[in-house]
Amino acid sequence: MLASCMALSVLTAASVSAEDAAPVQAEAAPSKNLIVLIGDGMGPAQVSAARNYLMYNKGINHLTLDSYYVGQATTYADRGEDGGTVVSGVVTDSASAGTAFATGNKTYNAAISISNEDVSVPFASVIEASELAGKATGLVSTARITHATPAVYASHVRSRDNENAIASQYLESGVDVLLGGGSANFLSKEENGKRSDESIIDNFESLGYTYVSDREGLNGLTEKNGKVLGLFGGSHVSYVPDRTDATPNLAEMTEKALDILSQDEDGFTIMIEGGRIDHASHANDFPTTVQEVLDFDAAVKVAMEFAKKDGNTSVVITADHETGGLSLSRDNIYELNLDLWDKQKHSSEYLIGKLKEAETVEDIKTIVAENTWITDLTDEEAAYILTGDGSSYGREGGYNAVISKRLLVGWSGHGHSAVDVGVWAYGPIAELVSGQIDNTRIATASAEVIGVDLEAATAKLQEKYLYPKFKVARDGEVLYPAKALAEALGAKVAWNEASRTASITQGDNKVEVSLNDGVVVVNGQASDLTSDVDNGKLYLPLEAFNQLTGQHMTWDALSERIVK
Amino acid sequence: MLASCMALSVLTAASVSAEDAAPVQAEAAPSKNLIVLIGDGMGPAQVSAARNYLMYNKGINHLTLDSYYVGQATTYADRGEDGGTVVSGVVTDSASAGTAFATGNKTYNAAISISNEDVSVPFASVIEASELAGKATGLVSTARITHATPAVYASHVRSRDNENAIASQYLESGVDVLLGGGSANFLSKEENGKRSDESIIDNFESLGYTYVSDREGLNGLTEKNGKVLGLFGGSHVSYVPDRTDATPNLAEMTEKALDILSQDEDGFTIMIEGGRIDHASHANDFPTTVQEVLDFDAAVKVAMEFAKKDGNTSVVITADHETGGLSLSRDNIYELNLDLWDKQKHSSEYLIGKLKEAETVEDIKTIVAENTWITDLTDEEAAYILTGDGSSYGREGGYNAVISKRLLVGWSGHGHSAVDVGVWAYGPIAELVSGQIDNTRIATASAEVIGVDLEAATAKLQEKYLYPKFKVARDGEVLYPAKALAEALGAKVAWNEASRTASITQGDNKVEVSLNDGVVVVNGQASDLTSDVDNGKLYLPLEAFNQLTGQHMTWDALSERIVK
Repeated sequence: MLASCMALSVLTAASVSAEDAAPVQAEAAPSKNLIVLIGDGMGPAQVSAARNYLMYNKGINHLTLDSYYVGQATTYADRGEDGGTVVSGVVTDSASAGTAFATGNKTYNAAISISNEDVSVPFASVIEASELAGKATGLVSTARITHATPAVYASHVRSRDNENAIASQYLESGVDVLLGGGSANFLSKEENGKRSDESIIDNFESLGYTYVSDREGLNGLTEKNGKVLGLFGGSHVSYVPDRTDATPNLAEMTEKALDILSQDEDGFTIMIEGGRIDHASHANDFPTTVQEVLDFDAAVKVAMEFAKKDGNTSVVITADHETGGLSLSRDNIYELNLDLWDKQKHSSEYLIGKLKEAETVEDIKTIVAENTWITDLTDEEAAYILTGDGSSYGREGGYNAVISKRLLVGWSGHGHSAVDVGVWAYGPIAELVSGQIDNTRIATASAEVIGVDLEAATAKLQEKYLYPKFKVARDGEVLYPAKALAEALGAKVAWNEASRTASITQGDNKVEVSLNDGVVVVNGQASDLTSDVDNGKLYLPLEAFNQLTGQHMTWDALSERIVK
Repeated sequence: MLASCMALSVLTAASVSAEDAAPVQAEAAPSKNLIVLIGDGMGPAQVSAARNYLMYNKGINHLTLDSYYVGQATTYADRGEDGGTVVSGVVTDSASAGTAFATGNKTYNAAISISNEDVSVPFASVIEASELAGKATGLVSTARITHATPAVYASHVRSRDNENAIASQYLESGVDVLLGGGSANFLSKEENGKRSDESIIDNFESLGYTYVSDREGLNGLTEKNGKVLGLFGGSHVSYVPDRTDATPNLAEMTEKALDILSQDEDGFTIMIEGGRIDHASHANDFPTTVQEVLDFDAAVKVAMEFAKKDGNTSVVITADHETGGLSLSRDNIYELNLDLWDKQKHSSEYLIGKLKEAETVEDIKTIVAENTWITDLTDEEAAYILTGDGSSYGREGGYNAVISKRLLVGWSGHGHSAVDVGVWAYGPIAELVSGQIDNTRIATASAEVIGVDLEAATAKLQEKYLYPKFKVARDGEVLYPAKALAEALGAKVAWNEASRTASITQGDNKVEVSLNDGVVVVNGQASDLTSDVDNGKLYLPLEAFNQLTGQHMTWDALSERIVK
């Protein structure tokens, strides 16, 4: 497609047209296997920071990543709202960015591989298209495996927070290897998990998955364990500086996943995420950010060694966005205190409990002295930590602000930023993602290089599911925005101002609702179906649409989707 | 050299070895002409900001730059000091970065194309090597033409602040087209300039330069004006929003320079700088930063159109560093107030006088309302502006902090930062600078692609000049660090602890200084030469070294260099 380094790429999602993702014969695909690596929150400054650390503190003059740099990607999200609760601007979150590079479509922040509409449709990811092509698939992360970045590859929900649904959807996804944190979303509340229905780890085992929960378990797996669920912690996998011997690092998870998946003769597709660069940067914990980038870079090394040995693998690496507005310098000082960058023992997260218990500036001084090189914390610094930084990070934020100032690095806040992110690649995919691209190009290039069909996979999903905004009435009945759902189902909607009546027509069927009395009339017969008007929008239950269309659609309450 | 997009480049300056810059027959050079464009202070966020502005406010989905993105470059400076006054950390300034991409050598901050030593040696730039190869050359900038970025291409001084010397060195440089700001460094104090010696514009005219000082003058030039000095303002060229009709923009300067230089049958080398992206970012003036990036991008368009039409031109574009620690988002808000990004009438610099005169919060509110969309400035915001931001930017800094907060962008300070910068290229040079490179590679690739010899040009300079740290005694006599200068001249230095005597030997000549009495003994004879010890270092006058070496070295007081 792009013939040279001088990729004259255009930027908008629209430019990544259907033709780009057109089906390619699998036999003729440039690569059999695809490895996607995502550094969550790994913006340009995070990468430069990790390299500076290696150069000045370790005498190593480059990251593994550096040898594969091919371009950069725009990351902007679609503006929108999610049920009125999440306002989405152009600065992307991991869900929106992930949907873009996994499926090739822009959407609103919080959306897990669905469109930005009142009644959204699902978009298939390159992992789902690979499943359809008979390839083995895997998801690996140091975040919860149900967190946004892995989620966009094998699940579809309106809100990324619905992690129990994401875990359940994994069960149906066919993904062979799932390694990460987040066992709580797989366990019932009775088992100290977060699920009100039931624990589902057994269900995975019934489907042939081997379940492991620590490094020893991971190491014990062999290539014969074709399906694996590995959950290393209730929530995210511990940060690098806080890990015990029982916690595998990302490189170890990567190596094991590649061992297993490479047994499939049809090839494999895997996404590996350094998920906690983002978390450390959200907290503005600079030393941990650096260590998490290096943990990710070590996984890149494993992936590249595999790809080079294998000879039939494409590797593409990017970030979803930058986190924290990190700046390598501050206060007009042309220096970085590099020698102090590894003088913090544990992450700031590890200190939260202790910081919460502190009552005096002396308590703060003790905590800081125990965890860092700082034995001369000033009263002013200690008081600032005790007060907190004014954000939801509170004292942890205050602690990190003090540390960052001492390290001579700056942050613009605790959120994401809109700077372009790097793209690195190896193998045939490299020329497809070189130069200035949009993050949606990662998805279409991924599909193209291994010859899988995103459009066909998407069509299959869209036959089955719709993801509506909805409301739950006082009696628990679920109601749907009538106009949007009708149109999503191909029905016609009309409004009669004189009679204040909405009518929805499909074929010979007609549903009418008079806003004067709220009665729902189906094919001329008054029904006992509920109707509601909220904020000027008419809402109806699913049964109204079943009668309209003659379908037997059901509501999947866990995944908050209509099953057609 | 690098065969594919997957440039397996290494990072250190050391890796850009002598071989890389080995002479290439000019006849066989891949390109006849070279255009280097530098966006001063144009880090990743500045580029993303300008693109976002075009996308959301102008409906244009990419910068001209975007089509040519090929990689990114590290920018770190050599740590060091300059005469004890400028402390140089790893975060580069424009002088150090410029020396790297113009000559291929790392040095300390403030150095204009000289080495990082007590007695520094000069490094030749690709412009100087082009001069030796008979090519036409040009320097164009919206900053003062004597500012660091143009300076590194055609002058050599220990401190970038010595702009009068830089102007004088241009006179000897042979550079054919000089367009930018900064007439004050060419004019005597009597003519409202900054020179205590004399105005030197006449001297340029005597050498055949046509002098112009406004847009009309620039437009009146034809290709027959082979040598041009254009100075559009006493200091920097006005910011985009503050320009009058008399001020040319960077694209116009670029077009005229290319018209003139392209007449040379031997080809040409030109450096074109968007010099004020940096200044706007130093001040944290976000709207002006965006406009300055777009002004630069328009010049990129002119350069690319020329290169494509010409067919024998390489173009390489980079930045020297990021400025301000700009972040596109702040305070955990996932939005950018893009619709407000062009609602500031003038730059913050334009307001300095008015802000200085303000006495009350009401005065501040009036100034802000007149220059922006803000009619609801709070008392708190106005008071903050009145107090100033605590930096040397004072009220201007306060104003920009308020504006930036409203625009939802952040800064980490008023200085530079260490994030990698983008590299864009067109023509044969593209494959030489693709991937992750160090900024020194820009210089060696520049020389290689047009077949000019940096090493030979450097050797020629080093035969002639030395740039010592020096001190001026109370009576005005200039003294030099004896050990460093002796070693730079190839002499041997010995220290006798018993007699507290330093002896410097070259061939049959010997200079001895007893630290007990300070007497300088030349070849056994006591002399009346001065000696001084400062901070444990022995200092001697140049005459001591002339007697030692038999040379007739002189001191160029303006350029603060020894002429051998």
